Amino acid sequence: MTASRSDTNATVMDHLLDRLNALGVRHLFGVPGDYNLKVLDRVVAHPRVEWVGTASELGAAYAADGYGRTNGFGALLTTFGVGELSAINGVAGSYAEHVPLLHIAVGPTSATEEAGSLVHHTMGDGDFDRFARAHRHVVCADAVLRPDDALSEIDRVLTTCLRESRPGYLRVPRDVALGPAAPHPPLDLPDRQADADSVEAFRGAARERLAAAGSVAVLADFLVDRFHARAELAALVAAGSLPHATLTAGKTVVDERDPAFLGVYAGAMSEAGVRAAIDQADLLILAGVVLADMATGKFTHEFDPDEAIDLGPTTARVDGVAFPDVPLATALAVLTELVEERPPAPTPPAGSAHHQPASPARLANVLKESATALGRKLCGSQLPLTQSYLWKAVGSALRPDHTVYADNGTAMLGIADRRFPSGARFVAQPMWSSIGYCIPALLGGQLADPSRRGLLLIGDGAAQLTVQELGVIGHHRLTPIVLLVNNDGYTIERVTHGLHAVYNDIVQWRWADLPAALGVRRPLVLSARRPAELDSALARAVDTTDRFVLIEVFLHKEDVPPALKRMVANRPDRAKWVA
Amino acid sequence: MTASRSDTNATVMDHLLDRLNALGVRHLFGVPGDYNLKVLDRVVAHPRVEWVGTASELGAAYAADGYGRTNGFGALLTTFGVGELSAINGVAGSYAEHVPLLHIAVGPTSATEEAGSLVHHTMGDGDFDRFARAHRHVVCADAVLRPDDALSEIDRVLTTCLRESRPGYLRVPRDVALGPAAPHPPLDLPDRQADADSVEAFRGAARERLAAAGSVAVLADFLVDRFHARAELAALVAAGSLPHATLTAGKTVVDERDPAFLGVYAGAMSEAGVRAAIDQADLLILAGVVLADMATGKFTHEFDPDEAIDLGPTTARVDGVAFPDVPLATALAVLTELVEERPPAPTPPAGSAHHQPASPARLANVLKESATALGRKLCGSQLPLTQSYLWKAVGSALRPDHTVYADNGTAMLGIADRRFPSGARFVAQPMWSSIGYCIPALLGGQLADPSRRGLLLIGDGAAQLTVQELGVIGHHRLTPIVLLVNNDGYTIERVTHGLHAVYNDIVQWRWADLPAALGVRRPLVLSARRPAELDSALARAVDTTDRFVLIEVFLHKEDVPPALKRMVANRPDRAKWVA
Repeated sequence: MTASRSDTNATVMDHLLDRLNALGVRHLFGVPGDYNLKVLDRVVAHPRVEWVGTASELGAAYAADGYGRTNGFGALLTTFGVGELSAINGVAGSYAEHVPLLHIAVGPTSATEEAGSLVHHTMGDGDFDRFARAHRHVVCADAVLRPDDALSEIDRVLTTCLRESRPGYLRVPRDVALGPAAPHPPLDLPDRQADADSVEAFRGAARERLAAAGSVAVLADFLVDRFHARAELAALVAAGSLPHATLTAGKTVVDERDPAFLGVYAGAMSEAGVRAAIDQADLLILAGVVLADMATGKFTHEFDPDEAIDLGPTTARVDGVAFPDVPLATALAVLTELVEERPPAPTPPAGSAHHQPASPARLANVLKESATALGRKLCGSQLPLTQSYLWKAVGSALRPDHTVYADNGTAMLGIADRRFPSGARFVAQPMWSSIGYCIPALLGGQLADPSRRGLLLIGDGAAQLTVQELGVIGHHRLTPIVLLVNNDGYTIERVTHGLHAVYNDIVQWRWADLPAALGVRRPLVLSARRPAELDSALARAVDTTDRFVLIEVFLHKEDVPPALKRMVANRPDRAKWVA
Repeated sequence: MTASRSDTNATVMDHLLDRLNALGVRHLFGVPGDYNLKVLDRVVAHPRVEWVGTASELGAAYAADGYGRTNGFGALLTTFGVGELSAINGVAGSYAEHVPLLHIAVGPTSATEEAGSLVHHTMGDGDFDRFARAHRHVVCADAVLRPDDALSEIDRVLTTCLRESRPGYLRVPRDVALGPAAPHPPLDLPDRQADADSVEAFRGAARERLAAAGSVAVLADFLVDRFHARAELAALVAAGSLPHATLTAGKTVVDERDPAFLGVYAGAMSEAGVRAAIDQADLLILAGVVLADMATGKFTHEFDPDEAIDLGPTTARVDGVAFPDVPLATALAVLTELVEERPPAPTPPAGSAHHQPASPARLANVLKESATALGRKLCGSQLPLTQSYLWKAVGSALRPDHTVYADNGTAMLGIADRRFPSGARFVAQPMWSSIGYCIPALLGGQLADPSRRGLLLIGDGAAQLTVQELGVIGHHRLTPIVLLVNNDGYTIERVTHGLHAVYNDIVQWRWADLPAALGVRRPLVLSARRPAELDSALARAVDTTDRFVLIEVFLHKEDVPPALKRMVANRPDRAKWVA
């Protein structure tokens, strides 16, 4: 995959950068530290990898994650102890969310280690392996590089990351990074091997199950993206015109303008039509689904995965019977063939009227209404903005080349409902749910694919955690739209517990002044307190593609998106977000 | 120590807060998260513990560390996974720097754990113990609280933290925190037990060593502070009028206006007089000393601890022979008695002329000169500011009620040289060396002792990591002086490696606009590019005690403090900061 270097002076770091580059890495995120400076010289010297200094290591980890989601692989480089531990929460998030990346922690030389020197960034006790041990609990593969097996260890870690779609960790003494690397054959990429017998057994069971089923629906999630099965999923739903939905984390793994797309399913938080179509389907095909709390409206889904065709990354299940070594893409292809074999779908049987509310025709109709018209109708353009109006308006403003970064809290729950244009993408972190993730994730995603425009949706509480990376976004001349919800604190927590509790308050910032203070050149700063102001700000932001745009949106601190209101209405017993 | 609660409805969390309060904790730092909200209700309800919400968990950890250094114990509370891992670098720093504190990570209920639910902030695999396992590598004691032994486990962890002066970690399922706590006797505080026989053996060996020695000097470090032996150290140096110095981390463990105080010792980085007096003493008494790289000018000290009287936290050594169970304070008291027994010190023997340059008379003379006068003499008030001028001026501006928070890099190295007024205190983190530490540490230290004024010295690169906590400082109406060195990036790294390398650059911020943007009310914002501007800014800042003051100081990016210049001049072979 990577051409062997003819350069006989190549170092281990040069080789590692070549390996990463062959996986799509053109940007390496991180913060310098005295142990890694000479290693950074190798990065600066690399012809195809650019160093992207972030303001903090946590920012670097999130940026590498956003990069990995977009480009298939991400990487960050930190310094020993202080740097790597500052990044560990981000790396752990990549594990939870199945994002493949490599964390390279460069430390003191082997000689310093052997001498047990009392050097800074250590505990002063000669134990140089503490932080590698800590990382072991949040990565899928790790190694301490030593001269004799550095190259093979690099490949072992990288291939594990690719196979599991998860982060890996390398602890690298500086001298090892700068030591010689013998020419090495291209990386032997892991093969998602299908077992032919298992595939045929799965085919038989699935055929039988499909034959017995009346209505068939598909529920897809983010593992379709991580395990590279988007095309196979698209073929399946096209083959049978199957009604389909995604979970929030999987939003945009399908074309949301497909007439058979139902919307985002989230248990009791879902819109009624989506909910009914999924919960009441005779047969559900679950594609790369993780039924976590945020995904299912706190486990309010009413279907049983053991009565479904459930496709995991490498194992397919039919009615709870497992067929190992049937990778997701293979399983989807098998189902496509089976669906094509089937007689054309009959008209919907009596009792499936629940499909009606989400019918494509009705949805298309709703989507035709402009946000402005909706706003006037719903609440008048001079009334204060509401979450309900906001997310409709944002949804209407989206363009095919937008990638939406929706931070945890009301931003993610609010926008997840909206039907995106074909081509638009969605990035969120509902499983790990680390607030502040989306600012650096946008940095990474935008650098990975500058042809797309980032639209960051984030609350004021969340944005305070990683605000410094806005400056890095500006420094790289990226021109996203940052929509900051100023609603006086952690609203998602207020509705969970402590509506008026002091701990849900935050320090009030002057957001409008921040981009320029953080070094962003010529930011376009807009604000909206009324629907008409929002409409005009969104229109201007979308048209202003050559500048960093901040839209500060003021909402009442107790207002929540429709999805949370539905949750309360549908399942008051589980209305609290957390048990 | 803590009165048992008569309240029979007390929860485990109430009890834990009582325990912490009995150790001096009146402020608990942290960030809310949905798993910990109900537990935070117990904090809000506690009559003597206040919740201090920080902008990030890393900020909470550093703040708790700053608090612990000032008050003897600190505490932070985070949420499961995302919160605790964001804080772990700060907690690890407390381990390296011997600061006692407790990290309370509140997670899902026991029922959720037992069910192995796929809840957010987990890896989705039912393993709820990963993050506790990661913490185990950076704390001195940890526990997962369960109803049957929660109270005894709390006491085990707290007493270990106190005994080792290091951080502990508690993973607390929310229901356990909110479960009932039976009345419990006061905390049995660890006793720094001395072994009488060992003490007498140490006394004999030390007496012999003292008798054989001509000149005796004392070198003290931060463990004197952490192991509560300041008074005993003061008594020792007073008893013998012993010339004494501290390492950087131990700065201000002695009264720096004592005529026998030599200055800060840092190997080849030291001023000539200090260096000679310590390196060439016939007998060195090392009090709570850690001979780490930053402390010793990269191991350029020229004395041998095995030929010294070396007092650790619990073990004393004479010429390398260990006397266990002789706590630091006890050992100092023994030495004080021995010194008092000694005949009065002879006049300095020939050959000790090296004491001259640092003689108290000369130093007092230097100190009499105002910074302004010095500046005019040295470089003229219209020339650009230099590091050399800056730190002299700051040193001259210090008041007895100031606590200086000197962040790693040129700020710490620059100010360490200056002789502080009696009473002034110094906080730095040379062992862990995590840049950005001092902003939150100041927040913690100021809340711990509002009678002191914080003076924060920090470079622009470092400040970008934790800048958001300036808003929290303002929110609590604290009125520190923040001296920000704007010198275009990581200067301490430029002098280590990569003078002009892109990785040592940072995004240029408009620092003057940041305090107000981050919510600080009525900040006094000053700037200085010339000596005269600095003098006037410092004078105004010191006089303006009722406002948050920012002084932005512009320096050339390649200028370094005198200590680094001495390092290069004295030991060019080790001039690079890191090997």
